[in-house]
Amino acid sequence: MKAEKFIGYQKLLSSITVECQKIDDIGNVASYIPELHHIDPNKLGVHLTTIDNQNFSFGDSTEKFSIQSISKVLALALAIELEGDNLWNRVGVEPSGTAFNSLVQLEYENGIPRNPLINAGALVICDILISHLKKPKYDFLEFTRNISENPNLNYNSKIAESEKLAGFRNASLINLMRSYGNINNDINIVLDFYFNLCSIEMSCQELAHEFLFLASDGINPVTNQRIVSSRRSKRINAIMLMCGFYDEAGEFSFKVGLPGKSGVGGGIIAIYPGNYSIAVWSPKLNKKGNSYKGMKVLESFTTKTRSSIF
Amino acid sequence: MKAEKFIGYQKLLSSITVECQKIDDIGNVASYIPELHHIDPNKLGVHLTTIDNQNFSFGDSTEKFSIQSISKVLALALAIELEGDNLWNRVGVEPSGTAFNSLVQLEYENGIPRNPLINAGALVICDILISHLKKPKYDFLEFTRNISENPNLNYNSKIAESEKLAGFRNASLINLMRSYGNINNDINIVLDFYFNLCSIEMSCQELAHEFLFLASDGINPVTNQRIVSSRRSKRINAIMLMCGFYDEAGEFSFKVGLPGKSGVGGGIIAIYPGNYSIAVWSPKLNKKGNSYKGMKVLESFTTKTRSSIF
Amino acid sequence: MKAEKFIGYQKLLSSITVECQKIDDIGNVASYIPELHHIDPNKLGVHLTTIDNQNFSFGDSTEKFSIQSISKVLALALAIELEGDNLWNRVGVEPSGTAFNSLVQLEYENGIPRNPLINAGALVICDILISHLKKPKYDFLEFTRNISENPNLNYNSKIAESEKLAGFRNASLINLMRSYGNINNDINIVLDFYFNLCSIEMSCQELAHEFLFLASDGINPVTNQRIVSSRRSKRINAIMLMCGFYDEAGEFSFKVGLPGKSGVGGGIIAIYPGNYSIAVWSPKLNKKGNSYKGMKVLESFTTKTRSSIF
Amino acid sequence: MKAEKFIGYQKLLSSITVECQKIDDIGNVASYIPELHHIDPNKLGVHLTTIDNQNFSFGDSTEKFSIQSISKVLALALAIELEGDNLWNRVGVEPSGTAFNSLVQLEYENGIPRNPLINAGALVICDILISHLKKPKYDFLEFTRNISENPNLNYNSKIAESEKLAGFRNASLINLMRSYGNINNDINIVLDFYFNLCSIEMSCQELAHEFLFLASDGINPVTNQRIVSSRRSKRINAIMLMCGFYDEAGEFSFKVGLPGKSGVGGGIIAIYPGNYSIAVWSPKLNKKGNSYKGMKVLESFTTKTRSSIF
Repeated sequence: MKAEKFIGYQKLLSSITVECQKIDDIGNVASYIPELHHIDPNKLGVHLTTIDNQNFSFGDSTEKFSIQSISKVLALALAIELEGDNLWNRVGVEPSGTAFNSLVQLEYENGIPRNPLINAGALVICDILISHLKKPKYDFLEFTRNISENPNLNYNSKIAESEKLAGFRNASLINLMRSYGNINNDINIVLDFYFNLCSIEMSCQELAHEFLFLASDGINPVTNQRIVSSRRSKRINAIMLMCGFYDEAGEFSFKVGLPGKSGVGGGIIAIYPGNYSIAVWSPKLNKKGNSYKGMKVLESFTTKTRSSIF
Repeated sequence: MKAEKFIGYQKLLSSITVECQKIDDIGNVASYIPELHHIDPNKLGVHLTTIDNQNFSFGDSTEKFSIQSISKVLALALAIELEGDNLWNRVGVEPSGTAFNSLVQLEYENGIPRNPLINAGALVICDILISHLKKPKYDFLEFTRNISENPNLNYNSKIAESEKLAGFRNASLINLMRSYGNINNDINIVLDFYFNLCSIEMSCQELAHEFLFLASDGINPVTNQRIVSSRRSKRINAIMLMCGFYDEAGEFSFKVGLPGKSGVGGGIIAIYPGNYSIAVWSPKLNKKGNSYKGMKVLESFTTKTRSSIF
Repeated sequence: MKAEKFIGYQKLLSSITVECQKIDDIGNVASYIPELHHIDPNKLGVHLTTIDNQNFSFGDSTEKFSIQSISKVLALALAIELEGDNLWNRVGVEPSGTAFNSLVQLEYENGIPRNPLINAGALVICDILISHLKKPKYDFLEFTRNISENPNLNYNSKIAESEKLAGFRNASLINLMRSYGNINNDINIVLDFYFNLCSIEMSCQELAHEFLFLASDGINPVTNQRIVSSRRSKRINAIMLMCGFYDEAGEFSFKVGLPGKSGVGGGIIAIYPGNYSIAVWSPKLNKKGNSYKGMKVLESFTTKTRSSIF
Repeated sequence: MKAEKFIGYQKLLSSITVECQKIDDIGNVASYIPELHHIDPNKLGVHLTTIDNQNFSFGDSTEKFSIQSISKVLALALAIELEGDNLWNRVGVEPSGTAFNSLVQLEYENGIPRNPLINAGALVICDILISHLKKPKYDFLEFTRNISENPNLNYNSKIAESEKLAGFRNASLINLMRSYGNINNDINIVLDFYFNLCSIEMSCQELAHEFLFLASDGINPVTNQRIVSSRRSKRINAIMLMCGFYDEAGEFSFKVGLPGKSGVGGGIIAIYPGNYSIAVWSPKLNKKGNSYKGMKVLESFTTKTRSSIF
């Protein structure tokens, strides 16, 4: 990996982002809780970190936002290390098809969620973490801080509380799984942990740093710390590609060509294995629940730099 | 209605019941809570009350058992009087098809249950009752006592508690409906009320007396008290016929030919409009969740007496 | 049964029908084939026949129309006599829930349709008839003519051909059932038979006469000819009540309170066991596919005459 | 790309294949048609071709077998060139979730299949090809021959005929899609074309050569002929990764880490973009319908050579 490989990235990122700032924004900011709804919809930031620690930023790249579902990947990374491959007895690795039938599939498949990145799967991951961790919320936050040696990561408890008040659908999912015996801990504790986990805030810069280990075979290349094994790093990337974008995974895998994960707060992280991690943020979501401009920026950038795993 | 019409009923009931006692019992006693599981599986009782108050009994007809889902009909009868026809905006009157897809249908139909006799529908009815009643548990019990002027009706709080501990699937349903805005009261209060309601205990004799008003156009013919309007009495009977036996409504409507409702405690009530109500009890359930011998007794009795609405 | 019981029926029928003629008609005439689409939407007829052969008519009661799905009941009546109770191994007796999932349920239930009145079930019935009859189309027509001693009943082959050209969904259903081994004869022959069967034309008068045997325990009371056994007459009535009105069976069972069957041509037959059969016809269909004014006429008439099985 | 990169591949392929020959074979040869059922279950072959035309083989690598669903990728490659991106109005690019609900999803999504590699999607692709090609069967065969300059590729008409006789489920799918207007040509012609297409036979060697263009950005690197554009080559690879292995796509993407496609004849093709194509063949299928030993060979080989897109 040589530095010149990335010459021109800064210029390209800037011009693409400027262009995306101009286009009409389709879609809507998430509105089911006030904390997400009141975000300035015009925010747009991007940050790219290479595995040899070159950094390229543009726009609102240092402003924190709620990473929401993106944190499911971090939860999986920790759970897989603590529980080992037994974890796959309780959650699958296959795409979930359309969103509409999450409850249907849970019923047919006896309470085993299709993958760890849909809500049901993430709830099982949370249940597993609670079984392993002494102080789940504290320990998980420490884990996320250690990954990128960033002490400034925190939950937003106000968001977590709001989510809880609106979280009837998640309560429905977890009760259903409990009826099949796939939840071991107290339901309210698992839900509380889950909503806190989704409330973590990061800037694009922090997000790119946090996920860099997945571009580098499981090792944070800046600190040389191994976060997950090489094999599990591959598995996590594979799961992100298959399941990271709700009902738009196929579209994303083609247009962007990289594994990644989006959150309802408007953030997206994408990984180019062996090369870089890139985080974008723009709050307005398309109909599938993924950041409209975030996907535009990534599509344009990966096309122009010919970054694609395919 | 003349007395001679029912000549021979006692002899027939006795001989049918004796015969049913002899046959091998297929199926199993409900086992999801210990209170139901530990019932003597050989219990068998039957009681018939005509609208001119003739009574015929056999077997364990004065022993109380948990009427379970049968109480959903009483809840409906009260809710329909309190809420009026607006009730039908929140719950349907159509059969639910197979049991397997209760959650599926709730999803497609935006949280509106198909009918008031499936669990989801009964939870909505409970929510409506709570909105109307000052002391829901007390008031509902009074309502059931008044119907048949029977002060000996009571909840079994031990059963209600057991149900609550095993009630994850109902918690899943109610949370899903809440996410669609079809539950207005606190979820835990509605669940508590629902489980108490299902825990009411009656003997066959009490059950037949309690439901006699549905054989008499909404009036208890013994006390001359109107419980529901004539029109609503018909509607409740129609709903029982369509929806009263889970996935076996069609089978029951043919074999027995009367509207009715079964409970997981092994009880069944059936109504011959203009003639009589009949209650049977035998704890072992067939695969569809209805009392195996209870259905046998009813099928044999209605066939031999040519009681059928068809 | 005495004649005076029906005094006033003619006057009532006339006044109800006149009133229904005045109300705005909601809904649309079936449009998937031109032969049904070009019907005069203002047609309205009604005919009632009592089991002692009193007849009351009003409006367009002697004009023939396409009875469509109503003929499924006649096919069932013949099949049940030819095949006996083995028939129930190949088709169920339970309501189908919502229309949307006919294919779903066929998949889950291994190609066994829920009941004989949905399309899939009627196709199985047709397959059974073909296995039994030497000249299926000829023999079935003879059967329908014999029931009411009416030689003027005929298929409308032009309608049958049009249906066939638009019948992809039925072709999908029958192929799916064939893949599960629940169709024995050549698919094209079964489909041709099915579409012919649905193309039979009757007037309200003819329809009421044709179905009178179901009001009289399986015997045509005019000719004293037994069509089906008493037991099977009850079963057919029970199936009509549970499954005769698509997704509106519960609504019909309450509002009209009688077993019946509708067709997409705008006809409805209803049976008051022990009393009469009544046929109505008005081409505009409500959203559930049942005649809007036809249901209005029946609801008003049965309410005012207190005809209800409940 | 330098030759030394692949040093050791031959030795490795041989040793892995020998080892896989020894292990117990789980699963069963496809049995729904005799032509597939009578294959020797012990066959095992593998062939790898690099983009600089180095070739490595082992076992039964030159014996022809029925490639079955693998040919859906070739049909897509041709259709995408003929129809352009309008094709995506008629078929999606998302994974299909579980196999069980192919008909369900077709119903919900108005006859638009989820992707071109499930049967419903491939039938739409066949319909598109028929609309574009003068002599569809002849022209398509020419297309496949031209890709790898291999005049020895042929349909097996006996297999095609057998498939047709057993093809009721496909007939169900295509009729359903026709009812939604998503099939334009005669159903029997489309089915005939589809079954022929699936009957093409190739050896592992031929298969690896045929698919090499997808490892080389859409150009066959041996002949320097462009088959599809670079952009479409990426899209096809992305679709294979997401949808190429029925209900096991997630498992394959992790274990093998490459896009690929399996067939019920026991063949699998996998693509390492920028490096090589590899074909394996072993007739026994696991429960998900993919070659048991074929997957073993690929998993072992890609793990040991660290070939993975992740």
